[in-house]
Amino acid sequence: MLITLTTDFGPGDSFVGTMKGVIAGIAPRAHVVDLSHNIPAHDVLAGALILRHSERYFPRGTIHVVVVDPGVGSARRPILIRGAESYFIGPDNGVLSLATAALEPAEVIELANPAYQLRPSSMTFHGRDIFAPAAAHLALGVAPHSFGPRLDRFCQLALPRVVRQGNVLEAEIIYIDAFGNLFTNISDRDLPAPPALGLQIVMGAVQIDGLSAHYAAAAVGQYVALINSWGLLEIAVNQGDARRGSGAKVGDKIGVFFAN
Amino acid sequence: MLITLTTDFGPGDSFVGTMKGVIAGIAPRAHVVDLSHNIPAHDVLAGALILRHSERYFPRGTIHVVVVDPGVGSARRPILIRGAESYFIGPDNGVLSLATAALEPAEVIELANPAYQLRPSSMTFHGRDIFAPAAAHLALGVAPHSFGPRLDRFCQLALPRVVRQGNVLEAEIIYIDAFGNLFTNISDRDLPAPPALGLQIVMGAVQIDGLSAHYAAAAVGQYVALINSWGLLEIAVNQGDARRGSGAKVGDKIGVFFAN
Amino acid sequence: MLITLTTDFGPGDSFVGTMKGVIAGIAPRAHVVDLSHNIPAHDVLAGALILRHSERYFPRGTIHVVVVDPGVGSARRPILIRGAESYFIGPDNGVLSLATAALEPAEVIELANPAYQLRPSSMTFHGRDIFAPAAAHLALGVAPHSFGPRLDRFCQLALPRVVRQGNVLEAEIIYIDAFGNLFTNISDRDLPAPPALGLQIVMGAVQIDGLSAHYAAAAVGQYVALINSWGLLEIAVNQGDARRGSGAKVGDKIGVFFAN
Repeated sequence: MLITLTTDFGPGDSFVGTMKGVIAGIAPRAHVVDLSHNIPAHDVLAGALILRHSERYFPRGTIHVVVVDPGVGSARRPILIRGAESYFIGPDNGVLSLATAALEPAEVIELANPAYQLRPSSMTFHGRDIFAPAAAHLALGVAPHSFGPRLDRFCQLALPRVVRQGNVLEAEIIYIDAFGNLFTNISDRDLPAPPALGLQIVMGAVQIDGLSAHYAAAAVGQYVALINSWGLLEIAVNQGDARRGSGAKVGDKIGVFFAN
Repeated sequence: MLITLTTDFGPGDSFVGTMKGVIAGIAPRAHVVDLSHNIPAHDVLAGALILRHSERYFPRGTIHVVVVDPGVGSARRPILIRGAESYFIGPDNGVLSLATAALEPAEVIELANPAYQLRPSSMTFHGRDIFAPAAAHLALGVAPHSFGPRLDRFCQLALPRVVRQGNVLEAEIIYIDAFGNLFTNISDRDLPAPPALGLQIVMGAVQIDGLSAHYAAAAVGQYVALINSWGLLEIAVNQGDARRGSGAKVGDKIGVFFAN
Repeated sequence: MLITLTTDFGPGDSFVGTMKGVIAGIAPRAHVVDLSHNIPAHDVLAGALILRHSERYFPRGTIHVVVVDPGVGSARRPILIRGAESYFIGPDNGVLSLATAALEPAEVIELANPAYQLRPSSMTFHGRDIFAPAAAHLALGVAPHSFGPRLDRFCQLALPRVVRQGNVLEAEIIYIDAFGNLFTNISDRDLPAPPALGLQIVMGAVQIDGLSAHYAAAAVGQYVALINSWGLLEIAVNQGDARRGSGAKVGDKIGVFFAN
């Protein structure tokens, strides 16, 4: 059984490794894959986006654990969501909600049963004491309803919406990757197919004419816009860093203008 | 068989991956888990603390390899320590000593047998040439005494002690995690149970009244003190970075004052 | 079957994890090892050097995947190289060429068969859509010639050559590791054995007399030169950072002077 881990723990400490030790002690045959551990600290939206755009590439039955959890130990509940093909484990703060929105979750369970938690459980590291043991026991075949009561609702994150005003799409930057590529909330489904030749993207002082198929369609150091591997409109610099060049940050507005 | 790796190699080079290649070539069925590879360069104390507070979460029989080794190639010996339930492999510079202090090591062996080393062995990368092969052969079932002569003593690190003066505990910061949380050398056993209501923590200009159960007990951006997942008194900022806010560093003094 | 991954994706995003999901979906029993994911962005030479100096430590039959691919989606071809003992998969931009130069590749294949690619394939993430599926299918036993047509030539990187002028070797820095150690293009085979006592290394204002066996042969904070674990002449600072101390960068010249 495959378990993925996504956290904001960073690479420096042993928190992720400790979670793997707990999993190996309970479910020695589980196969653990790191999705990312460099989510910006406490950035629930970034964690939710990474999960949303990655989970579909994992095989049926994968258990995805996400620990971006600024409210650890407080009233926010630890939950398990059963989707049509996969399982999602994490805090009920919205971090699981973008991935599961498309899946119409079959069941949401509160992780309340102490039999499937480390004892004594800390108030600051539920990744080790609640989420990792839950994933491991689930991988062993424990039924979801054994972990606790069913919940009627769970916390939902809302992505900013793309607004269409006449010939203009008003959108914004929602994610920036390690290359400095700027991901917007415009998906390929928001654009005419094939994308209009006359299309222009404007972000502050940056103007880009038309969509390209790949980075190398622009000269080295020049801006380029394309539909990226998440299916989103992306602003990049060929072999460069669009964030550094433009000073852009998550939440900055962009406009897409159509000629007709 | 489970092998953990802890190093100060950082994420950028292929040194850790190369160690895994060596292990896979000798013991293809060994399961390797990264504990941390971002120990600050040459920081033996940080490596020792990470191992001490993580190893108990791994299953019986786990082999822990730690390579924080500024003296590589010099007179310091490569060693193997057999604890009651686990094995520890690394340089004899103290990096294994905090984890094994509680375990009353059953046996300490010098890794001297060239049959279990890569040949030719480099003078700068014993992780690849001595420690990884030793872990892999141990995982295959080679007996500890086959690796070399038994040693009577090995290098011990001393943690700074907590000093009690009347109603005051004098302590210090011994570790800072990636969130900027400040770990002190005060353990939950140093405090009355339940912790006195009148307790006050002082670190330079920072004063914190009482212990909280979790980060979210403080307002966002405010200091909070709690017993963390390592069982240590920790100074943190809710959804913030206590290191950046205070300028604190490892070795800085703190005081804990009791009302009565 | 063992698959290694080397990329410039950095640790922050989920691109590497997504590749592992694709591999697990196709070849669930494949064992994936990370070689490095912090190659500097778009730095084909650094990726090629890491692969060259690491691949020999992996067992026979290992499949090495390297994705340092600034030209992704453009005319550069995705390729598979079969060496005498291992397989190499990546873009045809030279990143595979230093490792395979010594191996006299038996066969070079263009990854052109859509049956072994994810559909629809993106133009910006061939790691996920072409290279990971190719590695997984190869691990399952698909024959190399099934992936596409055989190629007569592929892109070769040239390492800067060491120039001998009388009693001087003119060389340069080709790689800098996370400790700030400076790797030169001088290999142990370029030096007399045993290295001449009168040897002096000059890099800008830095002068080092003789080669040492290991870092600790110099005082803490002092420069030292040695033959490192890649078999290359390296300039380091004992328990320090030679890059930070000297301001050196890849491409900087060094000279080695022999007394006689």
